[in-house]
Amino acid sequence: MARSQPLFGRVTLIGLGLIGSSVARVIRRDRLAREIVACDAAAAVRDKVLELGLADRAVADPAAAVAGADLVMLCTPVLSYGGLGALIGPKLRKGAILTDVGSVKQAVVDALAPHVRRGVHFVPGHPIAGTENSGPEAGFAELFRGRWCILTPPPGVDARAVERVAKLWRAAGMEIATMPPAHHDRVLAITSHVPHLIAYTIVNTVSDLEGTMRADVIKFAASGFRDFTRVAGSDPTMWRDVFLSNKDAVLEMMGRLYEDIALLQKAIRHDDGDTLHKVFARSRQIRRGIVQAKQA
Amino acid sequence: MARSQPLFGRVTLIGLGLIGSSVARVIRRDRLAREIVACDAAAAVRDKVLELGLADRAVADPAAAVAGADLVMLCTPVLSYGGLGALIGPKLRKGAILTDVGSVKQAVVDALAPHVRRGVHFVPGHPIAGTENSGPEAGFAELFRGRWCILTPPPGVDARAVERVAKLWRAAGMEIATMPPAHHDRVLAITSHVPHLIAYTIVNTVSDLEGTMRADVIKFAASGFRDFTRVAGSDPTMWRDVFLSNKDAVLEMMGRLYEDIALLQKAIRHDDGDTLHKVFARSRQIRRGIVQAKQA
Repeated sequence: MARSQPLFGRVTLIGLGLIGSSVARVIRRDRLAREIVACDAAAAVRDKVLELGLADRAVADPAAAVAGADLVMLCTPVLSYGGLGALIGPKLRKGAILTDVGSVKQAVVDALAPHVRRGVHFVPGHPIAGTENSGPEAGFAELFRGRWCILTPPPGVDARAVERVAKLWRAAGMEIATMPPAHHDRVLAITSHVPHLIAYTIVNTVSDLEGTMRADVIKFAASGFRDFTRVAGSDPTMWRDVFLSNKDAVLEMMGRLYEDIALLQKAIRHDDGDTLHKVFARSRQIRRGIVQAKQA
Repeated sequence: MARSQPLFGRVTLIGLGLIGSSVARVIRRDRLAREIVACDAAAAVRDKVLELGLADRAVADPAAAVAGADLVMLCTPVLSYGGLGALIGPKLRKGAILTDVGSVKQAVVDALAPHVRRGVHFVPGHPIAGTENSGPEAGFAELFRGRWCILTPPPGVDARAVERVAKLWRAAGMEIATMPPAHHDRVLAITSHVPHLIAYTIVNTVSDLEGTMRADVIKFAASGFRDFTRVAGSDPTMWRDVFLSNKDAVLEMMGRLYEDIALLQKAIRHDDGDTLHKVFARSRQIRRGIVQAKQA
C-alpha cells in the first residue's frame, strides 16, 4: 500500500514473539513506519529480529527503546505490563500512542493507565489472531488477515490516535471493533479463554492415562481431539497471564459451562436421548450461524 | 486401482449419509464391487443416491437389500443396529461379511452378534473420519485418506474376511489397526466423544448468554471457539447414539476431566501461576507429540 507519508515515524515494538514479529512484517511490507525499534529481553530474539530484517535497531532497555517513538506497542505477556509501564511511562514523548495486543483488556487498562501521562494517547487493542507457534521466526504478515481487532480506548482518548491504530490493523487485513474493556473480557472468556483452558486440561487428562491408552490416544487422535490439541500448543506463559488477568470472567464462564456439562452428563447417565438430541441440534444451529458470520 | 476381479461382488450399504455415501464413492472410483445396493429409509435419500450414481439399486427394505450380498455395511446411527440385525440376520448368505462404521464398538458387537449366523463373517469397524456435514450429497471419496480405521473382529472371525474389509479401507487411503472393542471405546471416549460433548456444551452455554453477549461471541468467534464449534456441527442423531452406546467410557473420561478442570479452576481462583504454567507447558509437549505422529 503506497503512501506519500508513512503512517508512523518511529514504531517501537516491545516483545518480538509471534504477534510482535508479525506486526513488524506488516509494517515492513507496507512501509507503514520510517523506523522500527525492537525491544526484547532475550539476546537471541534481538539477534534473530535483526537477522530477519524485522527492525532497524534491537535493544534490551524499554526506556531507551521508546524514546522518540510515535507508536509504542506492547507485545509481551500481559503481566509484564505494570513493570513496563513504570519504565516507559516517563519516557513516552508528548503525542505518542501507547497500544498493545494483549488478550485481556481490563487488566491492561488497570496496569498501564497510571503510567500514561497527559498528552500520551492510550489505545489498548487486541488483534484476535494467533497460531500455536512462538518466537520471531513464527510470525508472518498474513496472520491477521480477515480477523477482528478489538480496541478498548478509555473514554476521552483522542479519536485521531484511535484511528491511526485502526489504520495499522486495517492494513494488516483486520476489521475493527471498539468496546469497553470489561465487555471484551467477558466475550473473550467464553470464545477463547475457556476453550483454551479445556483444551489444555483434556490434553493433560490424556497424559495421565496408563501407557497403552495414552499411546493409542495419541496415535488415533483425530477430529475432536486434534482440534482441541491445536489450541493446547499455545504459549504457556502468555496463557498463564491471560487466566490470571481475566479471572472473574473466566470463573463465571467456567461456572456456566460446568452446569451445562453436568446436565449432559446426567442425561447420559439416565439414557435421556431426547435431551442429548435437543442440545446437539441447538448447537448445530449456532455453528451454522458462525459459518454464516464467516468466522469459521 | 485396476483389478482383474473386483474385491466384492454385491455390496449393500445400509444408510447413505456422509459415511455411507463416501464409501459408495470409493467403491465406484476404484471399481471395488460389481454392484452397489443402497438401502435407506428416506425416499429423498434413495432418489439422491441414484441421481448421483452412487448405487445400482436403492431400496427401502433392509432384508431385501442384503439378499445375495458379499459385503453388508451398516452406516446408520448405532442404536438402529439391533433392529437391523434382526431384519437382515436371517437373510445374509453364507460367506457374507457383515461390517459397519459406527463410532462405538462394544455396543455394536452386543447388538449384532446375536444375529450373525454360522458362516457369516462379522467384522465391526470404525473409520475415524468425518466432517460436520450430513447426507448423501456431503460424502466424498477422499474423506478417509490418511486416517485410521479400527477393526474389532470378535475372536475366531475368519482372517481372510477381516483382510477383505481391511483392503476396502486401504483402498480408501486408511491405515488399519485392530483391537478389542472395549479398548476402542475407551480410546475414542477421550479422543473424540468427550471433546464432542464439551464442544456441544460450550456452544449451548454461549446460546444461553444474554443478547449482546451472544451476538458478540458469534461475531468475534475465533481460534478456540471456532475449533470447538466445528465439531458441534456434527449430526445430532449420530452423536446421541454414540453417547448412549458408550456411556461407561464417556462417564469415566468425563469424571477424570472434571477433576483436572477443577484443579485448574482452583489454581486460577488462587492466582497460582506456577500450576497453570506447568499444566500448559506439559500440554504443549503432548501436542508436539501428536504433530509428530502426523495426526494433526
